Amino acid sequence: MTNPTACILVIGNEVLSGRTQDANIRFLATGLGERGIPVREVRIIPDVAETIVATVNECRAKFDHVFTTGGIGPTHDDITSECVAAAFGVPWEPHPEAWARMERSYKPGEFNAARQRMATMPRGAKLIDNALSVAPGFTIGNVHVMAGVPRVMQSMFEWLAPQLAGGPPIVSAAVHAVGLAEGRIAEGLEAVQKRHPELDIGSYPFYRSSGNGVAIVAKGNDGAQAAAAIAEVTALMTELGASPIQGEPPA
Amino acid sequence: MTNPTACILVIGNEVLSGRTQDANIRFLATGLGERGIPVREVRIIPDVAETIVATVNECRAKFDHVFTTGGIGPTHDDITSECVAAAFGVPWEPHPEAWARMERSYKPGEFNAARQRMATMPRGAKLIDNALSVAPGFTIGNVHVMAGVPRVMQSMFEWLAPQLAGGPPIVSAAVHAVGLAEGRIAEGLEAVQKRHPELDIGSYPFYRSSGNGVAIVAKGNDGAQAAAAIAEVTALMTELGASPIQGEPPA
Repeated sequence: MTNPTACILVIGNEVLSGRTQDANIRFLATGLGERGIPVREVRIIPDVAETIVATVNECRAKFDHVFTTGGIGPTHDDITSECVAAAFGVPWEPHPEAWARMERSYKPGEFNAARQRMATMPRGAKLIDNALSVAPGFTIGNVHVMAGVPRVMQSMFEWLAPQLAGGPPIVSAAVHAVGLAEGRIAEGLEAVQKRHPELDIGSYPFYRSSGNGVAIVAKGNDGAQAAAAIAEVTALMTELGASPIQGEPPA
Repeated sequence: MTNPTACILVIGNEVLSGRTQDANIRFLATGLGERGIPVREVRIIPDVAETIVATVNECRAKFDHVFTTGGIGPTHDDITSECVAAAFGVPWEPHPEAWARMERSYKPGEFNAARQRMATMPRGAKLIDNALSVAPGFTIGNVHVMAGVPRVMQSMFEWLAPQLAGGPPIVSAAVHAVGLAEGRIAEGLEAVQKRHPELDIGSYPFYRSSGNGVAIVAKGNDGAQAAAAIAEVTALMTELGASPIQGEPPA
């Protein structure tokens, strides 16, 4: 069984301008990886309709799942929902259930035109609930449209995740050594990677006040194989005179 | 004069898997914006040769500058440099100056095959120096290839930035109000945006222990116009019974 793939689209000028530090990519990448749906690409794009439409269409054809964050609020720069409708070539229209829920939650007269936009969705959208806000996200086809505010997005993902058909979980094993340079372990490490072509073996230098060094991480579907590869790396580190420590270096 | 555009390519399985929180996008986006080179797209892609080659070629055709981070170390998963050579259709070969510098910096016998890869570059590459590591980045055409380790990347960017021909700086003005919902200001805000089509006006809800509210940011090349738009938003907030405060909300 192979793993379904995911792409994350972060939609918002505020991330591209540097105003906002993205806090959604790592959360989603970790959560999807645990469910066996590895993220294969992330794009951060501006609030520009033609860019959103073209990117949604390119990515939904290329990956099994697309997760968008941002652009589903009530203001003029929130255009994700209507762009997803345009990408699918379906009408953007009031969603009966979202509309009824939102109408109920506001005082008379406060469910205004701006808020009604948050209950307007591509025809055929299925709602994504969340525990924090009355405005839902939605799924259409293989595109999951979520909020940009991290705690709302996280609540939406917790609701959505159990419904996604995952693949075998991606598991990893790691070892690190202080005082060991990447340039010394590189040759032996490449040989380990060649012996385990099904694994992704990554080499990550780290810089800590407690010392610099390198961490090696092996990822794949087979935990025993990842552990075997890391055992080989551990032996290699020892051979090079380093003192390998199992796992990732402390933060 | 229009602004040249930029695209950032973050190359690395470790960001896609959620292992690593990216720390380069916001730094580059801010620094480029200050120099009048707004970032229009970011892509995070894996250490897969065909993906890197295709993405570099797509983005260098589409944007005035492409900045890559990651994948220029000595290990088997560091393939950015050879992929950029393939994208440009030029040989990947020892760079005389980089080679000489690196050879000098290692003890006899320690400038091994893995380290020599860091001095191997696309033909015609111009070096990007940095204050922290002997291994340089490089520029070829409109593609700037930098390290993934944040402090090394930052040092490379500080060296590179003064050499980039920028556009008029992107300036911004902002106002925020506690206790004001986006859904109440949306309609009036859209009218402000329509009166200032040259500006990007963004609406960003915030959630702080000191109170929730909304921040409005106007960005563009004309500081007086951004200030005028924010003055209109300030009046709108007051009209809605809120107490606007100039600038962004405190962190």
